Amino acid sequence: MSRKIRMGMVGGGRGAFIGGVHRMAAALDGQIELVCGAFSSDPEKSRLSGQDLFLPSDRIYGSFEEMITKEKALPQGERMDFVSIVTPNHMHFPPAKMALENGFHVVCDKPLAFDMEEAYELERLVKQTGLIFALTHNYTGYPMVKQARAMIKNGDIGDIRKIVVEYPQGWLSTKLEEDDSQKQAAWRTDPSRSGIAGAMGDIGTHAENLAEYITGLHITEMCADVSTFVPGRLLDDDGNVLLRFNNGAKGILHASQISAGEENNLNIRIYGTKAGLQWFQMEPNTLYVKWLNRPMEILRTGVGNLYPEAQAHTRIPAGHPEGYLEAFASIYRNFAYCVRARLEGKTADPIYNDFPTVTDGVRGMNFIYKVIESGKSAQKWINV
Amino acid sequence: MSRKIRMGMVGGGRGAFIGGVHRMAAALDGQIELVCGAFSSDPEKSRLSGQDLFLPSDRIYGSFEEMITKEKALPQGERMDFVSIVTPNHMHFPPAKMALENGFHVVCDKPLAFDMEEAYELERLVKQTGLIFALTHNYTGYPMVKQARAMIKNGDIGDIRKIVVEYPQGWLSTKLEEDDSQKQAAWRTDPSRSGIAGAMGDIGTHAENLAEYITGLHITEMCADVSTFVPGRLLDDDGNVLLRFNNGAKGILHASQISAGEENNLNIRIYGTKAGLQWFQMEPNTLYVKWLNRPMEILRTGVGNLYPEAQAHTRIPAGHPEGYLEAFASIYRNFAYCVRARLEGKTADPIYNDFPTVTDGVRGMNFIYKVIESGKSAQKWINV
Amino acid sequence: MSRKIRMGMVGGGRGAFIGGVHRMAAALDGQIELVCGAFSSDPEKSRLSGQDLFLPSDRIYGSFEEMITKEKALPQGERMDFVSIVTPNHMHFPPAKMALENGFHVVCDKPLAFDMEEAYELERLVKQTGLIFALTHNYTGYPMVKQARAMIKNGDIGDIRKIVVEYPQGWLSTKLEEDDSQKQAAWRTDPSRSGIAGAMGDIGTHAENLAEYITGLHITEMCADVSTFVPGRLLDDDGNVLLRFNNGAKGILHASQISAGEENNLNIRIYGTKAGLQWFQMEPNTLYVKWLNRPMEILRTGVGNLYPEAQAHTRIPAGHPEGYLEAFASIYRNFAYCVRARLEGKTADPIYNDFPTVTDGVRGMNFIYKVIESGKSAQKWINV
Amino acid sequence: MSRKIRMGMVGGGRGAFIGGVHRMAAALDGQIELVCGAFSSDPEKSRLSGQDLFLPSDRIYGSFEEMITKEKALPQGERMDFVSIVTPNHMHFPPAKMALENGFHVVCDKPLAFDMEEAYELERLVKQTGLIFALTHNYTGYPMVKQARAMIKNGDIGDIRKIVVEYPQGWLSTKLEEDDSQKQAAWRTDPSRSGIAGAMGDIGTHAENLAEYITGLHITEMCADVSTFVPGRLLDDDGNVLLRFNNGAKGILHASQISAGEENNLNIRIYGTKAGLQWFQMEPNTLYVKWLNRPMEILRTGVGNLYPEAQAHTRIPAGHPEGYLEAFASIYRNFAYCVRARLEGKTADPIYNDFPTVTDGVRGMNFIYKVIESGKSAQKWINV
Repeated sequence: MSRKIRMGMVGGGRGAFIGGVHRMAAALDGQIELVCGAFSSDPEKSRLSGQDLFLPSDRIYGSFEEMITKEKALPQGERMDFVSIVTPNHMHFPPAKMALENGFHVVCDKPLAFDMEEAYELERLVKQTGLIFALTHNYTGYPMVKQARAMIKNGDIGDIRKIVVEYPQGWLSTKLEEDDSQKQAAWRTDPSRSGIAGAMGDIGTHAENLAEYITGLHITEMCADVSTFVPGRLLDDDGNVLLRFNNGAKGILHASQISAGEENNLNIRIYGTKAGLQWFQMEPNTLYVKWLNRPMEILRTGVGNLYPEAQAHTRIPAGHPEGYLEAFASIYRNFAYCVRARLEGKTADPIYNDFPTVTDGVRGMNFIYKVIESGKSAQKWINV
Repeated sequence: MSRKIRMGMVGGGRGAFIGGVHRMAAALDGQIELVCGAFSSDPEKSRLSGQDLFLPSDRIYGSFEEMITKEKALPQGERMDFVSIVTPNHMHFPPAKMALENGFHVVCDKPLAFDMEEAYELERLVKQTGLIFALTHNYTGYPMVKQARAMIKNGDIGDIRKIVVEYPQGWLSTKLEEDDSQKQAAWRTDPSRSGIAGAMGDIGTHAENLAEYITGLHITEMCADVSTFVPGRLLDDDGNVLLRFNNGAKGILHASQISAGEENNLNIRIYGTKAGLQWFQMEPNTLYVKWLNRPMEILRTGVGNLYPEAQAHTRIPAGHPEGYLEAFASIYRNFAYCVRARLEGKTADPIYNDFPTVTDGVRGMNFIYKVIESGKSAQKWINV
Repeated sequence: MSRKIRMGMVGGGRGAFIGGVHRMAAALDGQIELVCGAFSSDPEKSRLSGQDLFLPSDRIYGSFEEMITKEKALPQGERMDFVSIVTPNHMHFPPAKMALENGFHVVCDKPLAFDMEEAYELERLVKQTGLIFALTHNYTGYPMVKQARAMIKNGDIGDIRKIVVEYPQGWLSTKLEEDDSQKQAAWRTDPSRSGIAGAMGDIGTHAENLAEYITGLHITEMCADVSTFVPGRLLDDDGNVLLRFNNGAKGILHASQISAGEENNLNIRIYGTKAGLQWFQMEPNTLYVKWLNRPMEILRTGVGNLYPEAQAHTRIPAGHPEGYLEAFASIYRNFAYCVRARLEGKTADPIYNDFPTVTDGVRGMNFIYKVIESGKSAQKWINV
Repeated sequence: MSRKIRMGMVGGGRGAFIGGVHRMAAALDGQIELVCGAFSSDPEKSRLSGQDLFLPSDRIYGSFEEMITKEKALPQGERMDFVSIVTPNHMHFPPAKMALENGFHVVCDKPLAFDMEEAYELERLVKQTGLIFALTHNYTGYPMVKQARAMIKNGDIGDIRKIVVEYPQGWLSTKLEEDDSQKQAAWRTDPSRSGIAGAMGDIGTHAENLAEYITGLHITEMCADVSTFVPGRLLDDDGNVLLRFNNGAKGILHASQISAGEENNLNIRIYGTKAGLQWFQMEPNTLYVKWLNRPMEILRTGVGNLYPEAQAHTRIPAGHPEGYLEAFASIYRNFAYCVRARLEGKTADPIYNDFPTVTDGVRGMNFIYKVIESGKSAQKWINV
């Protein structure tokens, strides 16, 4: 099948942030072509946005409903293969549901949905339709995250005892949502668009997903202290959580939007019986391996014999830094490889059949609900 | 008074660790002279240890009781001015009590005592006698810790919202206490010498002390998950604690001896409404100031206009790294200046009248008790 | 003009390194479409490579001559707009010359050409045709390089006194060129394909270009010690150079392929009368500003009020690391904007009319010739 | 011999910098006692300085001549064992010569002397008298410098190909020597007190000494560009030097006092056929080992199985940072051990018989002379 995989986008019009990220990520590896979009609920804005992207006018739609309906009506060799959903949380479910019901694969931004009910319904639909669904917990796309996961799977650091995962940001230290130019702040702090959680939903889920993805462990109990520091804000902007995992490991997760001066400092430390691992998203090509009683090693993207999982997600030689967009692109590329295999009636290569799924999305939504519940509870431990 | 301040030491004989640190710290600034010691409960070992230190044989004692009694009997111009106690925890109280009761000032290693009762009794004795008592929470002696404290006092980072203090070590990842050569591991994991806590008493208290010292805040509530990971170990080797402070700030404290590959990685982050501060003990001459919406600044020992409190604890020009012994020495030097002022009938300079006191020690012991209580409790929040 | 800019590629077939980089860089920002290519001098390999890229078979050519001839014959609305040349050095000139002579704009990998004569001829052709020519000294595409350049232009660090630019690599520490699978090593160490220089041509020129681009200064004199350490290697693999600049500044440039364990560690320090700047390619989102007598500042991509030049080359918010491909993509995007402006009869926005030109390429070739001359000379200073 | 080694000091009175460093370094390990001093050429200032140090008035002298004469007249069991010389360069020779001629061992600050003639004379006197002479090239005292030296001696990094040693400072970026309060700047920029060189003598020699000490190699040729950037300054404040070593290795040495914003950033990189080493004085407890084709290792003071030479110069466990004063103290401690062995008629332990000697001092003076000669020469290479 000698053509690129075809993407239709919902959301991501002029002024959006994450839509552009998705488009760059989809374009990077030359596997995906943007063929259509419903970029805004405002048809005129959608039209202008589509023109910016050099789309033909008949593939720029005024709504996701129109897009899905009209694309479905196109001949098979022409219509989009999948829908990419890059809207705020409350608008994930409607297009995702309709796409799945009409036979389109889906890439969806995280968290999966606005509430648990929607999350479960999407999981049910994916299972029912057998379509491919990727959730963009993009931080799992980094090569050194793959390396860490492979090392742990291989027993290199022994049994895991302790996990510390942090996601501090400082950008909402003031009431930025009151500034009209701050669309990103506005919807993220608005319960009608973001859902029941602020920081814990926006970035706490990334931390949860990263910890579980790397370690292969599941959180079984949690005890949370969830706070809103900025006066008048309607959702949480900080949370500190004690964790317990299914193998007996203990952990700490904290996420914050009021950690003044922090950029996007997602990081994780995992301590096993043989070694500790440490990874920082802001310097993602480095993985620290802290051995018991021998010198720490610095693993670097592209240096030496990394695991195949890390190599398969590395594009360029050592010392040529790959970043956020490359990791994001790896989600899209892997998804595209799997869609292509499906279209060609083949089995996807397991090394690329590796991206967050609708089930990870349900886990993430459940994390959000439990952490908010725990934050309000006088009970110490909440089962997850 | 043209002479050095005279120190008698209890503990710190051959094979000890912290005794040598105290001696180097006391010697560094040329204010203190070691004049006598009871270096071991084994008189022969005490004698040999004293010879190593070039002490005259009549000032090497077989027990602290002998030392205090005989030194007291010496003429005022000759006898020791203070006792330095560098024994394991269960042997802090007896020499401290006897020293105070016999009119000697005291420097004591942390934690203050074996149990709360002893701690309260020492606090009572210090108040009663008016003698000077320093507890070697040495990490407060670093110049950049002084700088952080002064910045916060001055309002530079605004109101504090969040504090994250960590003290990970990995040296007890295996059951080191079974190795006969590992004296340090043995007593620290032995309830009869260490007290009710392991990691939380040995290093958790340092973290608590550092957080309260720098911020000037007090912990009011805590919720702890305290663990023993190494099979057969009798005391905790890891603890994760949610904190609440008296101004409404939230916090996390975690300390560990099983964080594989970590050396002595005490560090703290403090987020205010205007900026965040970050400091790592292992690179102590750097203080990160993360401003809202403007570039991060790197404050360095000796560079630019630091607060007088930082300057007063800096010995050498920028770029000539000062370390652990220098910070420890600052506790001794400050103590010595205060003893000298007392001997000369003067008021100590406030900038040097700055070292952890018996009251800090009582706070630290209370922290240990509460954290162990919380670790065992099903109740979420424990008042401190 | 509502379409993407159309690229035809010369080189970059299966097994190549830099061709894939150019394609990812061209694709990232959605401004450029790969429409055709002559990916190898072996027509069959070219065909297979073009199929990998989903090109229609009639736009995959067996040679650059065929590509240029046939594309020129296509209607204006269909044919390629520019040629991207990603072959080894000895094959830059022929396709570049033919492209220019046939009215196509050019992007060319560095160094500009195989020898000085070719370099001057290309410069002449660009001037004569008025076509747009970009040389991919990609490291100038980083946002913090733009920031450094803008700061210096603005006088923020005062008059420049000293420049230290380094480009250490270690990958050629052994005779890798003898390994048949090492195409990259083979041509870079082969005088018939690389030209008169090895390390100094491959990476020394990047260092020279970076130093002159950031500072706006020109090298006027140099004194070089150029070496070949690996026995039997035909070209230099290390060079150390003293520099003098046109404003009186002094400098050091060193580049190496035998600095064992170094990845791709291009970095630069520039010291002025008011401050010093420091930048590392391997952590490209950070720019250190070392002020006289006040704390160092850490400028970060996306944080605070950077100069417009830096902001215009930043895609995503602070803390989401941008890397090598993004910087490379900025060269392509800026080039595409300028080609678009030309096609639309407009003047290019000066902030984007910023990429290395054929004249920078001539300077680079001259640097290579002078440094090799100096390396062989007993005379201390060689005029540049 | 149960007593400390006795030190008499020349220089280091009130307001001095390096005198205090020497005293702290001598005191730290409890091996040395300051018993007398001639702290200033102004007898009254010497007296006050001695009182600050709690010396008895009869051991505070008005001149080094008086000190040496009177101490020599004291009974053997009472008089000083060695003289520590901490004066500006022009005052190294007179007290060193007199001390040696009167049978006292000597510790002398670097560079060895004011000129070559004095240097050779001191070397002659040391050989003639057989007395112990230590030069405080203190940076060789760091444990990780010892480790690097031992690794190289042991062949761990293979044959050395390239050495880059840097010593940038920024403190003389302005004409600080005009400020009356800046004694340190004044004498260092004054040819009548500093000698023929400024930066190259003050810190260039440290860089030269460090490179030769760690590698065991000798510089055989050099080519220097030596500059004075600050108008009106009489000595060099910057120098860039190409080096060639006796094994064929190439190198770069640069030292500067006008590298704005640099503190005391001595650092070195050494590349061998098997690995590269990197060490920064400002974070001295870390040694980077960059292996060919496998992950970089981070060696840390006190972690794992370092060479005995490193362990013998480490005082406290891993993660408790040792700094500048500790490294300086190791010179004094090793010297004291050797003096003690001499006094006791024993052979010094080779692991401690390790400190810079008068011969290293002659090498350093020769380096200064050659670098200044090369800076003025039109000849490319100067033999050393």
